[in-house]
Amino acid sequence: MPERLTRVAHLFARLPGVGEKTAQRFALFLATADEEVARDLGTELATLRDHVRPCDRCGNIAELAEGAQPDEPVRCAICRDERRDKALLCVVARVQDLLAIERSGVMRGKYFVLGRLLSPLDGISAEDLPLERLRRIVKDPEAPVSEVLVATPPSVDGEATALLVAREMASLGARVTRIASGVPHGGDLEFADQVTLGRAIEGRKSFG
Amino acid sequence: MPERLTRVAHLFARLPGVGEKTAQRFALFLATADEEVARDLGTELATLRDHVRPCDRCGNIAELAEGAQPDEPVRCAICRDERRDKALLCVVARVQDLLAIERSGVMRGKYFVLGRLLSPLDGISAEDLPLERLRRIVKDPEAPVSEVLVATPPSVDGEATALLVAREMASLGARVTRIASGVPHGGDLEFADQVTLGRAIEGRKSFG
Ligand SMILES: [Zn+2]
Ligand SMILES: [Zn+2]
Repeated sequence: MPERLTRVAHLFARLPGVGEKTAQRFALFLATADEEVARDLGTELATLRDHVRPCDRCGNIAELAEGAQPDEPVRCAICRDERRDKALLCVVARVQDLLAIERSGVMRGKYFVLGRLLSPLDGISAEDLPLERLRRIVKDPEAPVSEVLVATPPSVDGEATALLVAREMASLGARVTRIASGVPHGGDLEFADQVTLGRAIEGRKSFG
Repeated sequence: MPERLTRVAHLFARLPGVGEKTAQRFALFLATADEEVARDLGTELATLRDHVRPCDRCGNIAELAEGAQPDEPVRCAICRDERRDKALLCVVARVQDLLAIERSGVMRGKYFVLGRLLSPLDGISAEDLPLERLRRIVKDPEAPVSEVLVATPPSVDGEATALLVAREMASLGARVTRIASGVPHGGDLEFADQVTLGRAIEGRKSFG
């Protein structure tokens, strides 16, 4: 393979879930497909971060305003939305989770994106999470948060992260809640795993 | 999602095997990862095709010479290699297959990349294959091909394509051969599928 193509494959391998073989497949495809496929993607990516960045406050994706100054703080559409309930803050692991919760239409508060979960196996510890930034938002005197809803996934790492966040928030006077875990809507009990079923039973609620 | 990011996701979805979800994941990753990840990939891709193109003769990847004219024919390193046997032409489906055969070190001839296989289900018929270009190479009076080795994969589409190529080459005076199909080296007979085992037995050879 030409060196130029090897370089492109290496860059593709930085994408999440893309191994060496897949990265090579992408590079070969772009070297042989219609010319504009590589050019269009390249042009968009080269300038992507001049237009889209993480929100300085919450970590959600934010679109930069036309003619924004480089030192201007970046705020996402949700952080700028004055109709949102500032007293309710939903903590998620990834932007994808935020987007999924937004699609449900149920969350009327604001968000905080951790960007990652605690993961001893991957060497990710408490210091790698933006907990100081989270703390500053929760105890902001101008807009104090009264409820922190932890919406990390119900996995081992997600639960460990939820416990950590709850512990960190304990002294700040906000109530910390956790999303419910159980059998998914439309899910078949027969095919639910044991942990999910166990939690669905432990988390049972009275009718009415 | 910002419109800009949706556009990037659409462009990623053109890559082979990348669905909508994966494309969105790539776009979100690049919008939140270190800035240079998107910029480096973008810069390389935007100019990729100024440096790497399909060989006009065989379809293999070719690196453009420094200062090459736009109307200059593009030739890959294998087509330019005078030590290669011009009388033996190996027909493959994809550049990846060519690279795999090159790694084996056994092929001393030249190649021809079809780019795709016959596939009635995907609406790909004989007219979609570069058979006219293949024919011109095989009957080139300056370097006639005496053996066309068809190395398309031993799948339904690969076999149908091999038969088509054999039929098209029949009148040109070249011998048409097919790579052997059987139990792979190091493969366990217990886990080989029925068709592979059947072919391995049908294609059996005498010792010595
Ligand atoms: Zn925000
Ligand atoms: Zn070539």
